[in-house]
Amino acid sequence: MQVMKAPGRTMDAEAVEWLDAVNWQADGLVPAIAQDAVTGRVLTLAWMNREALLQTERTKEVHYWSRSRRALWRKGEQSGHVQRVREIRLDCDNDAILLVVEQTGGIACHTGRRRCFFQRLEDGAWQTVEPVLKDPKAIYGKE
Amino acid sequence: MQVMKAPGRTMDAEAVEWLDAVNWQADGLVPAIAQDAVTGRVLTLAWMNREALLQTERTKEVHYWSRSRRALWRKGEQSGHVQRVREIRLDCDNDAILLVVEQTGGIACHTGRRRCFFQRLEDGAWQTVEPVLKDPKAIYGKE
Repeated sequence: MQVMKAPGRTMDAEAVEWLDAVNWQADGLVPAIAQDAVTGRVLTLAWMNREALLQTERTKEVHYWSRSRRALWRKGEQSGHVQRVREIRLDCDNDAILLVVEQTGGIACHTGRRRCFFQRLEDGAWQTVEPVLKDPKAIYGKE
Repeated sequence: MQVMKAPGRTMDAEAVEWLDAVNWQADGLVPAIAQDAVTGRVLTLAWMNREALLQTERTKEVHYWSRSRRALWRKGEQSGHVQRVREIRLDCDNDAILLVVEQTGGIACHTGRRRCFFQRLEDGAWQTVEPVLKDPKAIYGKE
């Protein structure tokens, strides 16, 4: 999709071009993977709409769309576990995002673990293989 | 979801229990991330249904569900770029899969690049930042 480039176009207009390149699902979302820039660990899979991706690019802090709360969500807004974005990547089909991030506090998961992918399939059962680093009550209790 | 354990239950019955733990979307799919076990690179985001995940676990070769072809798809069945699975992980909401894989040939993408996430956002535009390692015609031409 091409947008005419012209001097003096607004920042919003600029944003349209690269946002339009994304193949948004019918529900206006795409899946977004967050990967730790330092350790390489895959932290989280969450969802973005146009606004979340635009705000992520502008603020350099990752924003998602919460499907359960149906609201824009700045990652870490309650927990302080902000994800500072280093790279934003798009896949070959333009329908998935990869975020390379610096994970504040080393905890990405609401359970207090370093990442959300803490269950591993072993002998036909999901086993929890990563420890809770901080009690969620301590993370969210003061909110 | 609990399934009664009993001696002599079939392999299919065994499979049900851990497959039932997954929060499949209304369309029967979940997103699955493939990460290179050696380099740590995030290679691909694709989709799995129950059969794809079961076949992945049984054969140790990654199977996806192709949304465009509406068919089960053994990764590499045409290209030879098979993904041998080392770990299958599930996230905190049970609605996303992480596969840690050995990528045959070092090429995961149908464009002949090592991975699908080869576009990076730079100054408001998606830039291709990874080279084509093998011409797709050479990969798929003999099929």
